[in-house]
Amino acid sequence: MAIYNFSAGPAVLPKPVLEQAQREMLDYQGSGMSVLELSHRSKEFDSIIKDAEQLLRELMAIPDNYKVLFLQGGASTQFSMLPLNLAKGRKAYYHVAGSWGKKAYTEAVKLSKTIPFDPILLASSEESVYDHIPAFEPSAIDPDAAYVHLTTNNTIEGTAVYHLPDTNGVPLVADMSSNILAVRYHVEDFAVIYAGAQKNIGPAGVTVVIIREDFLNDEPALSSMLDYRIQAEAGSLYNTPPAYSIYIAKLVFEWVKKQGGVDKMEEVNREKSGLLYDFIDQSDFYTSPVKVAAERSVANIPFVTPNKELDAKFVAQATPLGFKNIKGHRSVGGMRASLYNAFPRQGVLELIDFMKQFEAENS
Amino acid sequence: MAIYNFSAGPAVLPKPVLEQAQREMLDYQGSGMSVLELSHRSKEFDSIIKDAEQLLRELMAIPDNYKVLFLQGGASTQFSMLPLNLAKGRKAYYHVAGSWGKKAYTEAVKLSKTIPFDPILLASSEESVYDHIPAFEPSAIDPDAAYVHLTTNNTIEGTAVYHLPDTNGVPLVADMSSNILAVRYHVEDFAVIYAGAQKNIGPAGVTVVIIREDFLNDEPALSSMLDYRIQAEAGSLYNTPPAYSIYIAKLVFEWVKKQGGVDKMEEVNREKSGLLYDFIDQSDFYTSPVKVAAERSVANIPFVTPNKELDAKFVAQATPLGFKNIKGHRSVGGMRASLYNAFPRQGVLELIDFMKQFEAENS
Repeated sequence: MAIYNFSAGPAVLPKPVLEQAQREMLDYQGSGMSVLELSHRSKEFDSIIKDAEQLLRELMAIPDNYKVLFLQGGASTQFSMLPLNLAKGRKAYYHVAGSWGKKAYTEAVKLSKTIPFDPILLASSEESVYDHIPAFEPSAIDPDAAYVHLTTNNTIEGTAVYHLPDTNGVPLVADMSSNILAVRYHVEDFAVIYAGAQKNIGPAGVTVVIIREDFLNDEPALSSMLDYRIQAEAGSLYNTPPAYSIYIAKLVFEWVKKQGGVDKMEEVNREKSGLLYDFIDQSDFYTSPVKVAAERSVANIPFVTPNKELDAKFVAQATPLGFKNIKGHRSVGGMRASLYNAFPRQGVLELIDFMKQFEAENS
Repeated sequence: MAIYNFSAGPAVLPKPVLEQAQREMLDYQGSGMSVLELSHRSKEFDSIIKDAEQLLRELMAIPDNYKVLFLQGGASTQFSMLPLNLAKGRKAYYHVAGSWGKKAYTEAVKLSKTIPFDPILLASSEESVYDHIPAFEPSAIDPDAAYVHLTTNNTIEGTAVYHLPDTNGVPLVADMSSNILAVRYHVEDFAVIYAGAQKNIGPAGVTVVIIREDFLNDEPALSSMLDYRIQAEAGSLYNTPPAYSIYIAKLVFEWVKKQGGVDKMEEVNREKSGLLYDFIDQSDFYTSPVKVAAERSVANIPFVTPNKELDAKFVAQATPLGFKNIKGHRSVGGMRASLYNAFPRQGVLELIDFMKQFEAENS
């Protein structure tokens, strides 16, 4: 039986990446050591982290005036680190189109009780369970603000921002955790991009931060580990980095490049997710909670049956057939198919077959 | 040629651990998924993290009123997280017997510029390049202080604290990164123990924190990720944990248990390091920079030849023979043999053979 892992993260990885990691587990390139055993100051690891950075620069066309950092703590740590370094007593706007965007805002509010700055909720679609991307007037933004924060892809709710909003000249900062490398964005449109790796980059335990050099903090942050400038100047080696996760990320970057890069991945992802969206659209049984078709995520596709009992039955029947982690997030309910870069097209076809059969038996 | 990895961390892992990781890389226990792909909310990962905690509790005899956390960011993040949660406007004493202890103190001073508390340098042996553990009078400690911080093993300088000092009733907090599981300590003697994993626990990317429940912060910290109570209440799953590192740690804990546990590891480590110390002691050519024999680390053993040129020659000749990462830290110079739990006795014997030969050729 084929296993299809629809997990929203940590998520499916490309099989060739896992096979290479397996081959190299006991002896990395003739060193006689596992990557898990490499000193982070060794020439072997130096190559790994530099190659990882170079590949990511190439894939995302990252301009030279941006630093690339490999940090720890996930996007959740960035929720604090970002305002700590960038807000500096100013206004910081939060565009909240999903649960993770709300967490980013909530953490900013928490931090602002100790570190003076002014987090502002720019727009939110929480009232309608984030079923659309909320709009706002650019003129609502104070042009002296530190930044506007947005989430490019809402992992839980299945929406995405493909066309960046007008922010009245204020720098844009993005949590790109769930569609980095899956969709083409232009790095130069952002002051900072960050992403937990455990979706399209690969393993949990490493967080990518891409920051324009002139946004590096001038004054030290209250903790060296939370200080972008210190991390940038140390080339992500201020302390021991999450070495194995960076190694796996490097292998994933190589794989993405081999597939044809980000534009090709986006093409594949649009076709792959299109199969499922088209099927849902023609069905009277399944519904997408996302209101606006143009805002549909290519990475996370929630859907529901006519009622909660059938949703539960769907999950109960699908799981033993190899459709793993298909259950939706509790806040949205139903099911969620996360179709990241490494998710195979064949898995979408087989899911649709199962959905057809389930509909026939239960409608 | 056998490869012996003397790295101070990330460091050598037990071969059976790497072999099991290799076997399970593409299919963890029949799940059809790699551990790298497991959702952190899956039943498979739930077992891994719970088993890891249970094994560590058993190995270290951790009392029930202590929480065990698996966090990110290394000991360096704990340098800030600890005072942020525990100091609360009070005095916090730092016993500084090595470079890492000094970093802990320096970070506390940095944090205290924003978060009011009073970090105090209790004792330091910096003047003599940390060649001994500095003493202090218990009466020098204000009994109302938040804690006394110490480093149980100084990775760079090769000293260790085996007999805990009298802290005038003030709770003891320890960075145990480089000798956790290598030497027996009694957890009930500490309020908090923390350790970056990349020495005796295994992989980089996970940090173990053991904290007595009544030391969990009553008030929220400025960042949820840096809040012990939030992390404890979420069972280390507040956000996506460094899942693969926790899995490898679990395998290492199983291996330590199979070897006979911590007391047995200490016995083996004392014998293993004793071979090298005895050889250095009888030699007129090699010297240990550690002044007091009773303070010698069983984990990190620095040594020097009569001069810097010979030190460089030693490293240059040893490395191609398979003695990897034997170069000492720049602050101490010479060589350093890190003999963590997983380092094989045979490697010590072969190192001594090489040292004899080098001495014969160069003295």
